[in-house]
Amino acid sequence: MKTYIITIGDEILIGQTLNSNAAVIGNYLTTIGMDILKTSVVSDNHDQIMDEFKTAFNSSDVVIVTGGLGPTHDDITKSCITEFFDTELVFSQTALDDAKNIFKIRGIKFSESNREQALLPKVAEIIRNTRGTAPGMWIEKDEKIFISMPGVPYEMEEMMNSFIVPKLSNIAESTRKSYRVISNLLTTGIPESHLFEALGNLDELLGEVSLAFLPSQFGVKLRLTAYAESLKAAQNKILEVEQKIRSLVGRHIYGKDEMDLESVIGKMLGDRGLTIATAESCTGGLIASRLTNISGSSSYFERGVVTYSNAAKVELLQVDEDLIAEKGAVSLEVARQMAEGVKAISGTDLGVAVTGIMGPNGGTEEKPVGTVFIGICDEKLCTAKEYHFGNDRMLNKDRTSQAALDMLRKHLLGISYES
Amino acid sequence: MKTYIITIGDEILIGQTLNSNAAVIGNYLTTIGMDILKTSVVSDNHDQIMDEFKTAFNSSDVVIVTGGLGPTHDDITKSCITEFFDTELVFSQTALDDAKNIFKIRGIKFSESNREQALLPKVAEIIRNTRGTAPGMWIEKDEKIFISMPGVPYEMEEMMNSFIVPKLSNIAESTRKSYRVISNLLTTGIPESHLFEALGNLDELLGEVSLAFLPSQFGVKLRLTAYAESLKAAQNKILEVEQKIRSLVGRHIYGKDEMDLESVIGKMLGDRGLTIATAESCTGGLIASRLTNISGSSSYFERGVVTYSNAAKVELLQVDEDLIAEKGAVSLEVARQMAEGVKAISGTDLGVAVTGIMGPNGGTEEKPVGTVFIGICDEKLCTAKEYHFGNDRMLNKDRTSQAALDMLRKHLLGISYES
Repeated sequence: MKTYIITIGDEILIGQTLNSNAAVIGNYLTTIGMDILKTSVVSDNHDQIMDEFKTAFNSSDVVIVTGGLGPTHDDITKSCITEFFDTELVFSQTALDDAKNIFKIRGIKFSESNREQALLPKVAEIIRNTRGTAPGMWIEKDEKIFISMPGVPYEMEEMMNSFIVPKLSNIAESTRKSYRVISNLLTTGIPESHLFEALGNLDELLGEVSLAFLPSQFGVKLRLTAYAESLKAAQNKILEVEQKIRSLVGRHIYGKDEMDLESVIGKMLGDRGLTIATAESCTGGLIASRLTNISGSSSYFERGVVTYSNAAKVELLQVDEDLIAEKGAVSLEVARQMAEGVKAISGTDLGVAVTGIMGPNGGTEEKPVGTVFIGICDEKLCTAKEYHFGNDRMLNKDRTSQAALDMLRKHLLGISYES
Repeated sequence: MKTYIITIGDEILIGQTLNSNAAVIGNYLTTIGMDILKTSVVSDNHDQIMDEFKTAFNSSDVVIVTGGLGPTHDDITKSCITEFFDTELVFSQTALDDAKNIFKIRGIKFSESNREQALLPKVAEIIRNTRGTAPGMWIEKDEKIFISMPGVPYEMEEMMNSFIVPKLSNIAESTRKSYRVISNLLTTGIPESHLFEALGNLDELLGEVSLAFLPSQFGVKLRLTAYAESLKAAQNKILEVEQKIRSLVGRHIYGKDEMDLESVIGKMLGDRGLTIATAESCTGGLIASRLTNISGSSSYFERGVVTYSNAAKVELLQVDEDLIAEKGAVSLEVARQMAEGVKAISGTDLGVAVTGIMGPNGGTEEKPVGTVFIGICDEKLCTAKEYHFGNDRMLNKDRTSQAALDMLRKHLLGISYES
């Protein structure tokens, strides 16, 4: 079952709003094993909408449209649907009752102009809206399905959950010939090309499983996709390849699917009953912020300091003033002393520290922009490592925070820091 | 000049990654007055890519493609382009030198699989990549323009900035008939519905200018759009409406267009020669991280502390232990003492502090999830204010950091904190 997703709205086209609806729908459909042929975004314009309906309906089995169902003059999706299916609008008491109920809950007087929203194309089955006033539509024709929903994300999502996904899932199940399983292995600290080389002959490695490399400043995601005649068989195919990949580059894999490195670290610290404190210069608090994104992090995160000035490094962390003068605030030695200092003042099991030059200014020939030193101390050992990133300040902050968390992960696992 | 934006990648189709590239490109093009006809997302599949190239090239003046240019087997965009333009691949020394330079900066051994990235279709002009190894391509044929860029957002964005936008802007200028000006007023601390009411009769206010309300966790963006026969006339239309809006809700407007609240604060602090320190509990370092996102922030940001534990609040900030026992760590009094404490230990002109319950757990009947207290101290005054946000931990962190920075902005401007 091939699906074509259409988003209607100028705010998406001009880039003011991200197309989160297409992503949410794509995610739902993937979960129930449906294929997404294409997604598109078009303007609130009659001719463009009609053209897109035609292209989509001709090339796919299911068309899902969001947007353009509001009560104002620029919402024209419903009239386009009525024209496309050569039908007429009829009054729906259910739609009217639902809309009136929404107004009642919000304590707003029902306006007669909303009565128009209770009109639906004659060929459409209503998809009730429990979170807003515009109903959705489910139309079947020529053994194809055409679905229209409001563009408001939480109204759309509720319709997907309560009506569309269960119904499509049943249909997909009855016509299903093959099952798909997708798995994502999350790596960091190794460049895409090195990863590619480390995996060797891909045909031999993968067999019938497909692999995509998805890089970002946080690392490279390896997406594996397998098809088989049963769910179990598809899962087994994936599992086999996953094990081979782990045997080749396992040390760089910190998690699977939607996992964050901070939640991986959080689980390791929690399981072992270890506490941590952070001392940050160049990342300005980003590492502490990421660690505390995790609900329950107060059980292992004790405190953090953002020692931006040299005075703060000396006063809060007892970094040796002469050492700063001799080696520079951005140095291996200072990173190590910062980690040692924050561990000592916090009484935690671990201290992590970063100091570096994020740019765009402040680089020297010896220490160019992107130079970072990360220090880690535990009960037994204080160590530090030098990293080099790029020229972009915001990306460097992300990369440094990711490298620090990954160095911590490797430290906790007792594996080499080298990439 | 009509533009068609194509994003290639299964990860977008299946909803694993938001299509931020299309949004960023849409935004750039809108800024230089180009129209976006349509955006689409297709799979890494030869036939689908070729079909989409054909549709796009036939229906528009400019086609912009992102994705599928990496060094691995699943990147097929370049071979599709070569086939589409019926041309061949030729070696580019510039592309090879650029790629080698990137590896050198990052201190990584140059990998042979990257050598293939230095091959480009003969008809293409190279768009140099200063942030990654895959060059972009600019192709002109039949008075149309075809552009291909890597899907990695920060590589794509740099190419837009340094090469594509200036070049397209020149071309758009020479064929232009009417001028469009878009202006965004950035508000925070006032709900969308209150803003709507405060603006009164919109027809009277706006005249021929159109207005969209675009809410997020950081506030409501007011997007104004005006068309006219000259740039000056369009700008004047916008300016007139802007002034009216400022007279009605000016106190809530912290900036324009892409400005961040942290850069607004940074400029105010820099201009006045004031220094600041932060003490954070619930935001875990996010406020310090945002303040230090600004290049040059070391001239006003002295230090920050993330006092997650009560011990850290007492030891680092001299918060009264009895006060924590009596009022709770999440209280108006503790927020005020934290701000006072961090200012005192840092010797700065200003201290800002936050304490709150971000959720999803930890709420009580008296202080539900989303309760936040923000304190500010300067030479003369220590004050604190209570806020209430929602149930989502990540959104609450964003909202709290935004509220703290906005309270600071209002404090520096001497205007009321009330919404």
